[in-house]
Amino acid sequence: MDSLNPAARSCVIDRTSRARQKQQRPCVVWFTGLSGAGKSTLSGLVDRRLFELGHHTYLLDGDHLRRGLNRDLGFTDADRAENIRRAAEVACLMADAGLIVLAAFISPFRAERRLVRELLPAGEFVEIFVDAPLAVAEQRDPKGLYRKARRGELKQFTGIDSPYEPPEAPDLRIPTDRLTEEQGRDAVLALLARRGIIRAPAP
Amino acid sequence: MDSLNPAARSCVIDRTSRARQKQQRPCVVWFTGLSGAGKSTLSGLVDRRLFELGHHTYLLDGDHLRRGLNRDLGFTDADRAENIRRAAEVACLMADAGLIVLAAFISPFRAERRLVRELLPAGEFVEIFVDAPLAVAEQRDPKGLYRKARRGELKQFTGIDSPYEPPEAPDLRIPTDRLTEEQGRDAVLALLARRGIIRAPAP
Repeated sequence: MDSLNPAARSCVIDRTSRARQKQQRPCVVWFTGLSGAGKSTLSGLVDRRLFELGHHTYLLDGDHLRRGLNRDLGFTDADRAENIRRAAEVACLMADAGLIVLAAFISPFRAERRLVRELLPAGEFVEIFVDAPLAVAEQRDPKGLYRKARRGELKQFTGIDSPYEPPEAPDLRIPTDRLTEEQGRDAVLALLARRGIIRAPAP
Repeated sequence: MDSLNPAARSCVIDRTSRARQKQQRPCVVWFTGLSGAGKSTLSGLVDRRLFELGHHTYLLDGDHLRRGLNRDLGFTDADRAENIRRAAEVACLMADAGLIVLAAFISPFRAERRLVRELLPAGEFVEIFVDAPLAVAEQRDPKGLYRKARRGELKQFTGIDSPYEPPEAPDLRIPTDRLTEEQGRDAVLALLARRGIIRAPAP
């Protein structure tokens, strides 16, 4: 084994070959929005349908990563930025592996979301704004986090005492207070089909 | 979208389904050894052959991760441990996505490699000791790092002024100074076939 890194690199399967094997165009579909806006539900439904259509996907979400890769991080501005940076790097690696990656993160800051977009080849970042008015998200409060934030038990909670910067030009906006779950899912699938990311037309 | 996280979770495709779609058993094949021992070459050749056999794989290596996910880390003991912790978490996510993950990291410490093993379900961690005597690795010196370390320009370099703890019971040991590249590759493939990880017998 005298040939080492340069030779090894030529053995490495490139991004295009991995994608071709899976008969799809890899990309990162990034769901941003308030806690309670419906990111997990929507990304989960899109994942399920893509899987049924034979696509190779993976779903990354904030809660999941915070139990593993990002478990050393808290909720300061610096830690939130690092949380998103690592999520973005992992999403890019998975897209490089040929997967369609669904990523559901509050990701409240425009600058961080821009960073994710810049990590990926052109056209491989799709930003979905999962949009619900704060009052609606707070009323749903599926994890009881807004109640805790209002009682002061959670600090720097997005929408309460930390800002959410809505996307200025998302690839798609899903108003979850006005669409059914299925309508939201189908709108995302239709977008992916229009962009040539999935081979089957949306149902 | 009134149903949120609990409902969303039930939409999530589980590990078994993702693996079944790819007709393989996901796992992490972890290549450990000195710089210059041949980890990149060997893992690259295994990756190429697995791909040719129709498997869905991904190759993670230290240099690659240090340009992205781990670019904030240096080479102190703490940073080295964090480098491996993150690599392990990413490898686990990719195995969860159904992939066979090839991971090539010097990973000099037993405790860290044990941590990787413990992150994965039983039988999904395969440790390959890529073994070359220090003198051989140093003579190859593909990246010129040993020369730098000997001149004192690189501190805490594994094998020079930082220890390498050989695996006590690796799943496989490949002595790269005594096997050809192809023999090394085929030995790894034969092991994966014996373990039922790949469907095709090794060639």
